[in-house]
Amino acid sequence: MNFRSITVTAPGKIILHGEHAVVYGKKAVASAIGLRTTLKLESKNDDLVTLNLLNFKTTCKWNTDELQRDVKKLGGTDLSCCTLEGRKLFNKFVDHCEVTEVDKRLIKAAISVFVFLAGRILEEFESLPSFSVEVITSIPIGAGLGSSAAYCVCLCTALLAATGQIPLPTVTSASPTALSASESERNVSLSAQDLELICKWSLEAEKLVHGKPSGIDNSVCTYGGVLTFQDGIIKHLIRIPQLQILVTHTKIPRSTKDLVSGLRERYNQLPTVYNPLFDAIGAIAEESCVYLDKLYQTQAEPENTEQNFQEHYCILEKLIDLNQQLLVTLGVSHSSLDQLCCVTAKHSMHSKLTGAGGGGCAFTLVTPDTSEESVTEASRELSSLGFEVWDTCLGDHGVTLAFT
Amino acid sequence: MNFRSITVTAPGKIILHGEHAVVYGKKAVASAIGLRTTLKLESKNDDLVTLNLLNFKTTCKWNTDELQRDVKKLGGTDLSCCTLEGRKLFNKFVDHCEVTEVDKRLIKAAISVFVFLAGRILEEFESLPSFSVEVITSIPIGAGLGSSAAYCVCLCTALLAATGQIPLPTVTSASPTALSASESERNVSLSAQDLELICKWSLEAEKLVHGKPSGIDNSVCTYGGVLTFQDGIIKHLIRIPQLQILVTHTKIPRSTKDLVSGLRERYNQLPTVYNPLFDAIGAIAEESCVYLDKLYQTQAEPENTEQNFQEHYCILEKLIDLNQQLLVTLGVSHSSLDQLCCVTAKHSMHSKLTGAGGGGCAFTLVTPDTSEESVTEASRELSSLGFEVWDTCLGDHGVTLAFT
Repeated sequence: MNFRSITVTAPGKIILHGEHAVVYGKKAVASAIGLRTTLKLESKNDDLVTLNLLNFKTTCKWNTDELQRDVKKLGGTDLSCCTLEGRKLFNKFVDHCEVTEVDKRLIKAAISVFVFLAGRILEEFESLPSFSVEVITSIPIGAGLGSSAAYCVCLCTALLAATGQIPLPTVTSASPTALSASESERNVSLSAQDLELICKWSLEAEKLVHGKPSGIDNSVCTYGGVLTFQDGIIKHLIRIPQLQILVTHTKIPRSTKDLVSGLRERYNQLPTVYNPLFDAIGAIAEESCVYLDKLYQTQAEPENTEQNFQEHYCILEKLIDLNQQLLVTLGVSHSSLDQLCCVTAKHSMHSKLTGAGGGGCAFTLVTPDTSEESVTEASRELSSLGFEVWDTCLGDHGVTLAFT
Repeated sequence: MNFRSITVTAPGKIILHGEHAVVYGKKAVASAIGLRTTLKLESKNDDLVTLNLLNFKTTCKWNTDELQRDVKKLGGTDLSCCTLEGRKLFNKFVDHCEVTEVDKRLIKAAISVFVFLAGRILEEFESLPSFSVEVITSIPIGAGLGSSAAYCVCLCTALLAATGQIPLPTVTSASPTALSASESERNVSLSAQDLELICKWSLEAEKLVHGKPSGIDNSVCTYGGVLTFQDGIIKHLIRIPQLQILVTHTKIPRSTKDLVSGLRERYNQLPTVYNPLFDAIGAIAEESCVYLDKLYQTQAEPENTEQNFQEHYCILEKLIDLNQQLLVTLGVSHSSLDQLCCVTAKHSMHSKLTGAGGGGCAFTLVTPDTSEESVTEASRELSSLGFEVWDTCLGDHGVTLAFT
């Protein structure tokens, strides 16, 4: 391996609009956020493969040939940690950990993805080289903010770079900065082809975690920015304004599957009522794209008046309120989310749940009219309710790759 | 006048579903309720016309020729109490009353309707006969529950009967029960033609009170039962189940005009979002008719199981919840109404605002599964919040006429 270390980062994501309605064929809008996962892959000479999940304080070590055996044992595709072999394999790393059962499930999923990707992407090596992988994230894990997609994207990118499937520029001695460059980290500009490869592999990895992922999460984490998704087709928003948001985790555990199937039951009972509700949410998603573009234009053209700004922010806020109330109407909100919306409304900010609902996370739009004091005070109140709050941005960039 | 007294009653009304959306061409469903207005017209020999509004503790007396002069002064159609002549005319009865300004406005409207109808319906008499009219109602006045329509319907019916335009059966001496019948009150069965005449006149009278009434209120108060209204066309629901409801008045004053125009502004800003919301409310109105019919059928056929009952009630409850949440989404609810819904939800009952919203009234469905204790306890809690609560029924009969 012709590098010392590879560092990859990838963003988390939120659904801006269209959760649930997307299942009924309407447009959903997702955005990368400023919370990111960082993964460092280092070349080693210790005959070991090491996976260090810093957030879980969990380290897994394999002899290189032992890992190759494990991969073969699991047969490549059936890597679900629910199979007996899978359980045995991952339990050896997890059983002694002093973490919650939920965390154990997440750790097992992370290890299973690692074994799968290492086995598949590194299969060209007759004998596995030794290396270590260290992962740390500021994305809350298992909260519907794309932590698993960011992990998968980081891991794919690092492994694809390690095998040269994503080419790392060679440091030639002709270059006058060669020596210093080889000492310090060099950024790699990823081509459209690279991103496509990462997106494809990360989707395969996501299938291990989520069964049938929509492809939104790994796309957003790969490409960054804002994407729309409808009937399996992903489109990129070209012009994305700078937007500050708060992301709040209510810590209320929820089951996406139960929320989706509960709504399906209600839909089946009164489809004539629910269909136009989904139409309304679809229209909100469409309008949000229009007004994000308008706001970008206003931000880009300094001759625009203050009033234009305010009007566009005002509509974005209205769309957030309308969608949140529609999600309440669909029965997928939760008292904790209602409470959260009340707190931010008190400070003239507008919030909606993001993802499946029933607890989980919400986002709050912060506009230039929002005082810093309001943000601080609202965050304080939300924290005092037991929620966790992050002050971040929308439309962050996608996967980054650097190496030494 | 060949009678001693005429007694008329007419019901109040609620909008079950479709308020606001009806303005955008969707179906609305209205129902008569068990709160009624009673009007007694008595033939007199005192050269006076007397109007006694018992709820307002207000009595107006005219010499018969003075009333004829007043009618001519106002010119028949322009009877609005906002004109200078109108103000002068009604102020003489109202100025000394110890009532609120709102009540003064309502009293003036009641007198203006009286002068208008007496002048127009009794114009065949060269000189007005003397008579008295006494009105009392259990419908809360000015709360959007059709109190003015019930008043107009009662007054039209009494005056049309007094002039013989609605024929009162003559008591012939040939009838063996003639003497006793002339002593006690005899009910008159109103023909379809009579009802049409009453409905037409009461709409004219309503125009004095409301400017441009939709025609729903006077139709429901005339015909009773449950009606649908769409694009100006009124249809009668044939089969109406027995349903108990609570009607609650929050006492929060609201302006229908402001609520409708506020929503129009929001609609104009995001029509693609609001149109499907109105579609959803229209679908709720349609489904409510389907399930009222199904419930009637279940009630009528004793072989139906308990389960059928529960299913139909359950859907009627869901439609109430969905519509209330949509009205919240449209921005026409009020914190008092949200509070009301919370209180009844605590007792497993489902409520929605009725009418324009922004305060005003709500109704709550009481099903066979609701314990008497729940109804009592919820009513007590609502009263303690300063609300007024009536325990009544849906689909009450329309106008009734009796005479001695």
